[in-house]
Amino acid sequence: MKKCNLKNDYSEGAHPDILKALIETNNLITETYGNDIFSGEAKKLIKKKIKNENADIHFVSGGTQANLLVISSMLKSYQSVIAASTAHVVIHETGAIEATGHKINTVETVDGKLTPEHIKNVLKEHKDEHMVMPKSVFISNSSETGTVYKKEELKALYSFCKKNNLFLYLDGARLAAALASSDSDLEPEDIAEYTDVFYIGGTKNGALTGEAIVITEDKLKEDFRYYMKQKGALLAKSRLTGIQFAEFFKDDLYFKLGEHADKAAMKLASVIKAAGFDFLFPPSSNQIFPIFPDKLIKHLQKTCDFYVWKKTDENSSAVRLVCSWATTNETIDMFITSLEDFNETQ
Amino acid sequence: MKKCNLKNDYSEGAHPDILKALIETNNLITETYGNDIFSGEAKKLIKKKIKNENADIHFVSGGTQANLLVISSMLKSYQSVIAASTAHVVIHETGAIEATGHKINTVETVDGKLTPEHIKNVLKEHKDEHMVMPKSVFISNSSETGTVYKKEELKALYSFCKKNNLFLYLDGARLAAALASSDSDLEPEDIAEYTDVFYIGGTKNGALTGEAIVITEDKLKEDFRYYMKQKGALLAKSRLTGIQFAEFFKDDLYFKLGEHADKAAMKLASVIKAAGFDFLFPPSSNQIFPIFPDKLIKHLQKTCDFYVWKKTDENSSAVRLVCSWATTNETIDMFITSLEDFNETQ
Amino acid sequence: MKKCNLKNDYSEGAHPDILKALIETNNLITETYGNDIFSGEAKKLIKKKIKNENADIHFVSGGTQANLLVISSMLKSYQSVIAASTAHVVIHETGAIEATGHKINTVETVDGKLTPEHIKNVLKEHKDEHMVMPKSVFISNSSETGTVYKKEELKALYSFCKKNNLFLYLDGARLAAALASSDSDLEPEDIAEYTDVFYIGGTKNGALTGEAIVITEDKLKEDFRYYMKQKGALLAKSRLTGIQFAEFFKDDLYFKLGEHADKAAMKLASVIKAAGFDFLFPPSSNQIFPIFPDKLIKHLQKTCDFYVWKKTDENSSAVRLVCSWATTNETIDMFITSLEDFNETQ
Amino acid sequence: MKKCNLKNDYSEGAHPDILKALIETNNLITETYGNDIFSGEAKKLIKKKIKNENADIHFVSGGTQANLLVISSMLKSYQSVIAASTAHVVIHETGAIEATGHKINTVETVDGKLTPEHIKNVLKEHKDEHMVMPKSVFISNSSETGTVYKKEELKALYSFCKKNNLFLYLDGARLAAALASSDSDLEPEDIAEYTDVFYIGGTKNGALTGEAIVITEDKLKEDFRYYMKQKGALLAKSRLTGIQFAEFFKDDLYFKLGEHADKAAMKLASVIKAAGFDFLFPPSSNQIFPIFPDKLIKHLQKTCDFYVWKKTDENSSAVRLVCSWATTNETIDMFITSLEDFNETQ
Repeated sequence: MKKCNLKNDYSEGAHPDILKALIETNNLITETYGNDIFSGEAKKLIKKKIKNENADIHFVSGGTQANLLVISSMLKSYQSVIAASTAHVVIHETGAIEATGHKINTVETVDGKLTPEHIKNVLKEHKDEHMVMPKSVFISNSSETGTVYKKEELKALYSFCKKNNLFLYLDGARLAAALASSDSDLEPEDIAEYTDVFYIGGTKNGALTGEAIVITEDKLKEDFRYYMKQKGALLAKSRLTGIQFAEFFKDDLYFKLGEHADKAAMKLASVIKAAGFDFLFPPSSNQIFPIFPDKLIKHLQKTCDFYVWKKTDENSSAVRLVCSWATTNETIDMFITSLEDFNETQ
Repeated sequence: MKKCNLKNDYSEGAHPDILKALIETNNLITETYGNDIFSGEAKKLIKKKIKNENADIHFVSGGTQANLLVISSMLKSYQSVIAASTAHVVIHETGAIEATGHKINTVETVDGKLTPEHIKNVLKEHKDEHMVMPKSVFISNSSETGTVYKKEELKALYSFCKKNNLFLYLDGARLAAALASSDSDLEPEDIAEYTDVFYIGGTKNGALTGEAIVITEDKLKEDFRYYMKQKGALLAKSRLTGIQFAEFFKDDLYFKLGEHADKAAMKLASVIKAAGFDFLFPPSSNQIFPIFPDKLIKHLQKTCDFYVWKKTDENSSAVRLVCSWATTNETIDMFITSLEDFNETQ
Repeated sequence: MKKCNLKNDYSEGAHPDILKALIETNNLITETYGNDIFSGEAKKLIKKKIKNENADIHFVSGGTQANLLVISSMLKSYQSVIAASTAHVVIHETGAIEATGHKINTVETVDGKLTPEHIKNVLKEHKDEHMVMPKSVFISNSSETGTVYKKEELKALYSFCKKNNLFLYLDGARLAAALASSDSDLEPEDIAEYTDVFYIGGTKNGALTGEAIVITEDKLKEDFRYYMKQKGALLAKSRLTGIQFAEFFKDDLYFKLGEHADKAAMKLASVIKAAGFDFLFPPSSNQIFPIFPDKLIKHLQKTCDFYVWKKTDENSSAVRLVCSWATTNETIDMFITSLEDFNETQ
Repeated sequence: MKKCNLKNDYSEGAHPDILKALIETNNLITETYGNDIFSGEAKKLIKKKIKNENADIHFVSGGTQANLLVISSMLKSYQSVIAASTAHVVIHETGAIEATGHKINTVETVDGKLTPEHIKNVLKEHKDEHMVMPKSVFISNSSETGTVYKKEELKALYSFCKKNNLFLYLDGARLAAALASSDSDLEPEDIAEYTDVFYIGGTKNGALTGEAIVITEDKLKEDFRYYMKQKGALLAKSRLTGIQFAEFFKDDLYFKLGEHADKAAMKLASVIKAAGFDFLFPPSSNQIFPIFPDKLIKHLQKTCDFYVWKKTDENSSAVRLVCSWATTNETIDMFITSLEDFNETQ
């Protein structure tokens, strides 16, 4: 991999504080399977942060695991989940949701975000037992296109879901980046208040691995550990995730890392904008999607790693640039220098 | 938890060498989802150790995940797996195998180990499409009762399976302890040769988390990563498992830790035997099952943590004592002292 | 097939009254998918017979379908069903229950019938999320060994299930034969009262095909048609099952056919007993299991079709003789003559 | 229901010849579970008609059952099926395919028919293990919009599938109507030649219930009866479907009934066209979708039963008129009279 890594936010190791905590706690003998003192401490800190003492919190090792676990636990076999056609669960999880037996009702969106109107249309078409019964809604914040929900938007979604007897689930693989976005007015406690269940992503924000599933809706709490064990998601040495999330929430490290990632991405975005380029989606968080001439893309790829997202016209493509908790000024500078070099050479 | 921990082999942190390796590699930017250089290095080392260059190796985060993944990938929907009634997949995985759609044909055994005779009996009873079709065999080494397979036993099983078109899968959650057992004449390469697929357990042998699935049968290799991703088992930051297993196999650390655990257990066993107690199963590896008067058990529990396994008569029970890579002389001594105290006080 | 058919109770066509009803109603245009007037009429008649106006009744095409549908609809993914090891769902349905994701906890019984004690033992062993959670109990009446439940036995089972928050499901593939048994003091309304759900078997009692699922427990009624449709069990032309069950329950034809089958079997049993032979299970209903010398079995097979069930000693085996709604005096006489012939020739 | 039934093709009983055959064969004792002589005879006749002696043929009770059975038997857990977004399996089977664990990749079409281009686009987007692997294609003939495939179209699809290692499955719920269409140049043997598996629909063409699954691709034949039994699709009294399909194919009754249905629909279509109305899809088979003013629809509904399909503008809607094997001249006349009445009254 190149030093200038804008390919994703999980190519680096862990934040040093996390490694330090692993070392410091290494000799302690603990309970297992989520009952260790570190998991207990992490849960306490998260509850405090989201201002909800009654939440149930569980740690798992990855995002696809979190998604298939939560969604399948919410649904009876004939019930479905509604999601944007760009959602991770729809495209990039190898049919993990369907493998648990459930249909995803997909809707087309402008920017990867769902609205009550989207859901209403799906509900209108599903009226009897010859069709699946939509029972839950999947959103991601930040979304797969880097966009973020505003408080009013999330509130409206949640309120619509409650009125229509639907569970609202928020995939927070990049929740830190979402909350740090200058386009976001959401606080951690809002996420807890305006969803039924969500997960706090660690993998993409500086953990070795691990996500924290937070269940606030009582109906979804029952026997969740049975589901976890059955899906292979209940880690024996749960101290691994416990220690990391305790560290994340002890001094707001989790949120600081999100800020770092967004700030780096916004710096890139402003330089790119100033250079006259457009974006496929408005840049809001740590993933940005500028549209570049293909020639420029080739030039940039000599120095930096990133994904080409999709062709936008004959000679141009959108690319995805991802900054992370670990992105250095050097990386940003390398990208900018490469961009400027090209302009000069044309 | 008490300092004298004989409850299980996953209550402690990780072996210090593993933490050291995590720190040393932390700043390297790598590929993801199993394609990182650390996973590559670990695979190379494992292949060398098992003397099989063609094996396919994949890392996952836990044992139940490994079991449900491997077994479901081997079977068509109407096919079943044969296992001892004491097997982990039968009792202690919350129906994880059945949740993937497959029946387990269970057989009663003396000591948790399967023989060709056991399998033959199952095959005889399953003859047409009104019954499931047995297609694979699950064994664990060491077994859930602490017993281990001899080379001739494993060879006989494998040979029977091949003749009957069955896949043989070995759960190596405690493979290090099995291979280190003085009752075992198996080498790592034998495990690879006389099974179709097995996993090398890290969680119970000093890793933070993680198991290495090793597939030697070509038919089982195809598209295994699709199965992994779909079940939520393909870690984005696969460096975590890669780094650990590279460390395990660089200088035979994996095997040394198994030896340490067994040696500690054997010391306990010899003291217990000398004190005149029997065992529920012959002590062979790091799990031993002495039978104690219930009064003695209560006494020992004041000092040490361990599981009471089952009543053996009105006044006695078998207990499970587990030693691990981290068991100290001090722990052993504490247990022995407590045992001797009791004898004196009677 | 031989004219003397004692192989099973579904080798013949349908009772003539059923065919007559199909012809008489053929020109009527009806609603579909269970909403036809015939299904409506059949439901009304069944409710009256079982003295339960609030039961929900659904018709499906076969017994395995009924079993997998009912059991999977009762359980969350981590919950299991308890059954005798001889149960049809355990052995003869190709893993249909496991294919819906659920473990069956099997128990050994003397005669294929479950008692509260059997269930209690299973519950005792299943205490936490590392194991499945038993949530339902499967029994069959008559059982797979031809035995039948007494009212007190069923009541005790049901009462135990209610106390332990378990659903009790009765497979009535041969319910007509069970109720007609002289060993049974159960009435149709008792079946409805002392179970949560059961099915009334048509296939093995003179229908072309079809079973009636009767749900009395409110919790199990919700959205059952969604489950049916999803499993391919909601027949478009539901008039087929509606017409048949209306005919069955119009004038108690269903029960008369069960009596006919039992009477024929009891005649066979008394002759066999008089001839000095024992039975593997006490003969109670339309399936009986006499133990014959293997030589006699060969002799009988020249004239009659039946299954050899299992070896009982070196020179003898138990056979299964099944009488049905269609068994003629001629068939009974042919068997008896063949039996007497052999005695004479020895 | 009204006498003028244009709602669907499964509201009537069975063709009289089928009932006659059931009566004539009623006293014969036969084997069961598909091994009866009637099923044998039906298979022989079908093989002759499709000119393929090596086809494997199995009878099941309904279309959703056939679809979920065939599709799940073709796929490994991570593989998907491609279908038009209007396909029955996508909308009207309550997630039956997903309930077997598989994703459906849907594509938008003009008229409910798939082309190689549609499939190519799906394949292009599915390249690695982070996404499902498309492995089969579902088409229906006639389609859910009443359109039919031409020989060149089917051939092109099949050829594309073979080149791309995909299985092609044709849902023939209304195959009789498709083949009878004047827009179709396909013969029964073409269906067998240019698909890997298809089913011949009985339920919607005059049977009491039942569909014949025809497998021509060898890879899909193995152990199909295991799948059937496990899904509850293997009827014990298989004589029911055997007798019906033998009757269907003895003297081409199956095809004559399709012709009858199409002829009736075409008569309706020509009258409607002559009266100046447009159609949502071009009328080709026994389902037609004229667009009527909502006022006219209300008027017609006084006399006839049919579905209102969808709004086409503020004051108009498309309706679905279905003719069947049982549609009488009287029904057609009633509809036409009602249509003319309205024109006069305006």
